[in-house]
Amino acid sequence: MIEVVHWLDLAGVAVFAASGALVASRKEMDAVGFVLVGAVTGVGGGTLRDLLLDRAVFWIARPEYLLVCFSVAALLFFAAPYIHRRYPVLLWADAAGLSLFAVTGAAVALETGVAWPVATLMGVMTATFGGVIRDVICNEIPLILRREIYATAAALGSGVYVALIAADVPAPAPGLAGFAACFVLRALAIRLRLALPAYRARPGRNYPLQ
Amino acid sequence: MIEVVHWLDLAGVAVFAASGALVASRKEMDAVGFVLVGAVTGVGGGTLRDLLLDRAVFWIARPEYLLVCFSVAALLFFAAPYIHRRYPVLLWADAAGLSLFAVTGAAVALETGVAWPVATLMGVMTATFGGVIRDVICNEIPLILRREIYATAAALGSGVYVALIAADVPAPAPGLAGFAACFVLRALAIRLRLALPAYRARPGRNYPLQ
Amino acid sequence: MIEVVHWLDLAGVAVFAASGALVASRKEMDAVGFVLVGAVTGVGGGTLRDLLLDRAVFWIARPEYLLVCFSVAALLFFAAPYIHRRYPVLLWADAAGLSLFAVTGAAVALETGVAWPVATLMGVMTATFGGVIRDVICNEIPLILRREIYATAAALGSGVYVALIAADVPAPAPGLAGFAACFVLRALAIRLRLALPAYRARPGRNYPLQ
Repeated sequence: MIEVVHWLDLAGVAVFAASGALVASRKEMDAVGFVLVGAVTGVGGGTLRDLLLDRAVFWIARPEYLLVCFSVAALLFFAAPYIHRRYPVLLWADAAGLSLFAVTGAAVALETGVAWPVATLMGVMTATFGGVIRDVICNEIPLILRREIYATAAALGSGVYVALIAADVPAPAPGLAGFAACFVLRALAIRLRLALPAYRARPGRNYPLQ
Repeated sequence: MIEVVHWLDLAGVAVFAASGALVASRKEMDAVGFVLVGAVTGVGGGTLRDLLLDRAVFWIARPEYLLVCFSVAALLFFAAPYIHRRYPVLLWADAAGLSLFAVTGAAVALETGVAWPVATLMGVMTATFGGVIRDVICNEIPLILRREIYATAAALGSGVYVALIAADVPAPAPGLAGFAACFVLRALAIRLRLALPAYRARPGRNYPLQ
Repeated sequence: MIEVVHWLDLAGVAVFAASGALVASRKEMDAVGFVLVGAVTGVGGGTLRDLLLDRAVFWIARPEYLLVCFSVAALLFFAAPYIHRRYPVLLWADAAGLSLFAVTGAAVALETGVAWPVATLMGVMTATFGGVIRDVICNEIPLILRREIYATAAALGSGVYVALIAADVPAPAPGLAGFAACFVLRALAIRLRLALPAYRARPGRNYPLQ
């Protein structure tokens, strides 16, 4: 199981590193910036997961994670012009990373014996935190503020996985179902610009906090 | 003692989750945004405290903390219009959360045997960090940058608690005094717009760093 | 060895605390703001290093680190007008801190037995993370986004140190060489406004990534 998580993590790290490198290209950084933002985005979510669960941070003992980030970022520094035309491909890869991490985040959390709300939140945090760091470092508006469904898809995937595990559904069904639920919802959000109904303040009512 | 800290933490988590949900309402997020920002704001400070002190993160083994955050955020998603009118109530609740966490942060730190400057800073960090994350994620100007006394109140409350413990004053006096010191100072700051004298650069002198 | 790292850390903490206090002065904060931003900037990088490597956080058991931060920040609150005239001095002190932390970050990481890419990245993170937190909290554009060579110097210093250790070069040569490599490169960047060639998007091509 942990070995499967390792490979899924590796795939997720690679696509998130690519998204980080793409943001670096928007900011016209140099090659070191590509590598740093790529690495932080790639390993950020899993790092938070491991710190919170008091596990050894997954990439510390396994340099292949960083080497994947470095390679992807270096490649994109040169290949980005060609990738731009394939922007939709990247959008889907990002959705795949989100779906992968929503499942592995919840799976690792469940293995440490936590309760279901904790495991579900851990899936969401693992899936979204790398992107939040990327956007904070790069001074972009964080994803969580945008209207399109994003964290919600991670919550769905993570929740489906946790529910199926709780119902004793045998592997690999919970993982596949969780991945699919997240990916499909995110895909619909991208294609149809789906958004949940947002809270709307009545105009003229402003309430600065502190 | 730890059991008392648990209940105080729970109260602090609830009011900070409410402050996070209110900021989410300002940003017109959807329900998942309310829940995520509420949870991160509610547990952020205590999480940093536990990570730095190498303790198990307090909400991992106790799902009631997250359930409180989820409930408060979900409630506010629907109830926010009514709460707006009670904005002052919320400002005071936030001050109560600040005061609670200033004490529990320092208390937990002292129990692990650290020195007094470390315990005092840990109280300030526990009290303010949730709000800093909330503002960073939501792209607000962080509290620490505003003129009104905020972190200073946490430092006072945390410092009073640490000093009384060092003077062997029996419980619950140090906790009550620390809470009161922070809350009263913050209350004065809110009511009277109190601010400490700020450093003022002479006009025309700009010194960009790096 | 660990004792040497302790003294180098102390020096690095002091100069980074000074850089934090200077940014606080730009934001015209009060004295508590100076102390908080100074402390967070001073200990931020080493804290991240220790959390990731699952070591005890270096300043928790040793209050002298915080006392150094507090003293430097308090001093600068009053002395800043005089320091402004010595701005270049501070820029060099900051470069010295970067160089110190690039070496100690990698050294501590190697001692825990990690592979070389991990140790090198740990050096870069230790050297740059305090400044990233400082800029995020203070709402400044993070250093990593600026053109001038900064993280690259840390990567060079950290890489030189790791390579010389791998080649069994006896102490203190690797540390001195790593420090010198980082400091000289950063000095050249400051003096000559050196920058690596940046990725340039072709005009008119925009590709927003969620």
